[in-house]
Amino acid sequence: MSSFNFTIDAECPETWARAGTIQTPHGTIQTPIFMPVGTQATVKSVAPEELHAAGAQIILANTYHLMLRPGSALIDSFGGLHSFMQWHGPILTDSGGFQVWSLGHLRKLNEDGVVFKSHIDGSLHTLTPERVMQIEAELGSDIILPLDICAPYPCSPKEAKKAMEWTHRWEERALVEKEKLRPEQTLFGIVQGAFEPELRAQSAQVIGNMPFQGLSIGGLSVGEPKEEMWGMLKHVTPNLPRDKPRHLLGVGSPEDLVIGVGLGMDMFDCVLPTRVARHGGLFTRDGRVSIKGARFRTARGPIEEGCDCYTCQHYSAAYVNHLARAEEQLYFRLGSIHNIRFMLRLAGQLRDSIINGTYPAFRDEFLARYIPASEKVREAQREKWKEARDKRA
Amino acid sequence: MSSFNFTIDAECPETWARAGTIQTPHGTIQTPIFMPVGTQATVKSVAPEELHAAGAQIILANTYHLMLRPGSALIDSFGGLHSFMQWHGPILTDSGGFQVWSLGHLRKLNEDGVVFKSHIDGSLHTLTPERVMQIEAELGSDIILPLDICAPYPCSPKEAKKAMEWTHRWEERALVEKEKLRPEQTLFGIVQGAFEPELRAQSAQVIGNMPFQGLSIGGLSVGEPKEEMWGMLKHVTPNLPRDKPRHLLGVGSPEDLVIGVGLGMDMFDCVLPTRVARHGGLFTRDGRVSIKGARFRTARGPIEEGCDCYTCQHYSAAYVNHLARAEEQLYFRLGSIHNIRFMLRLAGQLRDSIINGTYPAFRDEFLARYIPASEKVREAQREKWKEARDKRA
Repeated sequence: MSSFNFTIDAECPETWARAGTIQTPHGTIQTPIFMPVGTQATVKSVAPEELHAAGAQIILANTYHLMLRPGSALIDSFGGLHSFMQWHGPILTDSGGFQVWSLGHLRKLNEDGVVFKSHIDGSLHTLTPERVMQIEAELGSDIILPLDICAPYPCSPKEAKKAMEWTHRWEERALVEKEKLRPEQTLFGIVQGAFEPELRAQSAQVIGNMPFQGLSIGGLSVGEPKEEMWGMLKHVTPNLPRDKPRHLLGVGSPEDLVIGVGLGMDMFDCVLPTRVARHGGLFTRDGRVSIKGARFRTARGPIEEGCDCYTCQHYSAAYVNHLARAEEQLYFRLGSIHNIRFMLRLAGQLRDSIINGTYPAFRDEFLARYIPASEKVREAQREKWKEARDKRA
Repeated sequence: MSSFNFTIDAECPETWARAGTIQTPHGTIQTPIFMPVGTQATVKSVAPEELHAAGAQIILANTYHLMLRPGSALIDSFGGLHSFMQWHGPILTDSGGFQVWSLGHLRKLNEDGVVFKSHIDGSLHTLTPERVMQIEAELGSDIILPLDICAPYPCSPKEAKKAMEWTHRWEERALVEKEKLRPEQTLFGIVQGAFEPELRAQSAQVIGNMPFQGLSIGGLSVGEPKEEMWGMLKHVTPNLPRDKPRHLLGVGSPEDLVIGVGLGMDMFDCVLPTRVARHGGLFTRDGRVSIKGARFRTARGPIEEGCDCYTCQHYSAAYVNHLARAEEQLYFRLGSIHNIRFMLRLAGQLRDSIINGTYPAFRDEFLARYIPASEKVREAQREKWKEARDKRA
């Protein structure tokens, strides 16, 4: 018997936002929540107790990476991911599907599953819906996802339909296999349908009616404009059962969290907060800032006044600026902790606003303050990355 | 008035080893001691509280790097290195001399000082004995070193003599300048003399008789065989005053610490423990091991049984092996902490053995157990580095 449970604590009458509580074998999660990503059984440069101190309630790990290295059987022999990596809170693992599609010509799809070449050593591996359930059983994560097919962006309506139907068949097989494995694990379904409103609605209904205990929305944030992503959710959320938690796969940024909550999403995961931190982009209420910028060189205060993260509580922005410019490893940790704490504080504020009935005002104020400033920084960053790419090419 | 003080707590009657206590404005140091190196105002990948937990009593920072970035005036405006980097224990800064010599053709020497090009942006800078004192006053470190000239290895007796005499003249100028600056700082002298026994003895006498409060032995560990380095110390130590602490600059490894103590050295600093850790080399009583090795892949216990470091107390060797193979940033931290703790535990054991009168036995047992195993690992590592170099070339 799974000890998984989801209750809704409050709902916003004007939007689809809701606050909930998820019970898992490794603890309770209050939603909306952001899940830091620990791809290789480590959230890059951050130790488990630092995640805990930053308010992390659940983290995500990647099945694809872990099955290749160190291998799920090894992790199983250590009592699962929790004890292997010493994170004792809830863990969600994805299915590896998304990563396998990203391999492009290195994989081959058939009805049974997918054969692919490891990005590490080129060795051949096969994933089937059943095998993914077995691997995730060995990983021992609290919430597991089934193998799905993520259609490319853009793709034809025909391709989109084919990928969706294929995914649905695989998800039924995952449900059957899961029954034979670890009862304490919780299987979420994945909604697909690419960028076809009818398919999205259909997938939400089909997967929403299967006996999954939660629903992940896949195939979004794959290169499309943000408006298109939000547009798709408007066809998904109304077709989902109210009583199951909803996870927006691979999203997002602070603004994504704020907008996604209003579109009915409860759980978010993304490497973005830690990845942009490593490149010098740090979150503040007044938008994303570049910590390497000259304005921080002599800044005596913290990165953000009033921030309660470890970094801001212990170090001046000038010291963080110095470490970032010198490309010191301690910077990657301090920047990542700051952004993770920002995301988790934001999730808590969103939850409070839903409970207090002020979510729409909170959302509008946050976006009005955050987005204009961030856009400028992102523009500059894009330019820099483009230059770096051009230099390499 | 400097609050610096050095007392000898115990001496080994059969060797030159002694245990002592150094008082500084930022705390007490018990010798023999290893000083982790924080080149750019951070011990790579390790936070100050982690250094403290690993038993660090004093750290070293590099004047050359900090004068270029972020600049000593900036650090001064933050109240000095201690508050800038949030390490509140004692700090020793070197003089920048060694780094400037390493720049090769990028520097030009004259009697007044040395002009060099920054390795960061190619800008021109001048260091004189006086300027170095001013920079170190701005850094605010507890123990400061004067500008010296490190002769290359090998070099002619004539070159060696010229560099030594030049260094002696510069050190006199440093003493004069230091008097005008911060009284709470302590200036050590630097003994040079390259690999000429007579020059080493002469330099020890000359510098030992100047009013320095401690003595650093420079110009060693610059590429010579270890035996040659130890041979030089046999001409230095007997010519030094007994009542001043002795610092072996830029040395060393675990075995260097054990041997150096017997040759009268009290303080050691080196990037080696953290640098080899980043490459996968971890210290154990049974020699240096390569954590990426297959034997650790499934190792359920810690890196070293009985080790009291944070890493060994929290993580299996298998997890550390996984992080190291995956080149995850958390590995660099965990490996560095392990080696730093090893060095500091070893320093404590050396101190205890001197106080208990068992140093010679401790030394012999340690070396008999540590060196044969390490030599095998180092050999393999050298091969790998050579391969990597050949590939790049």
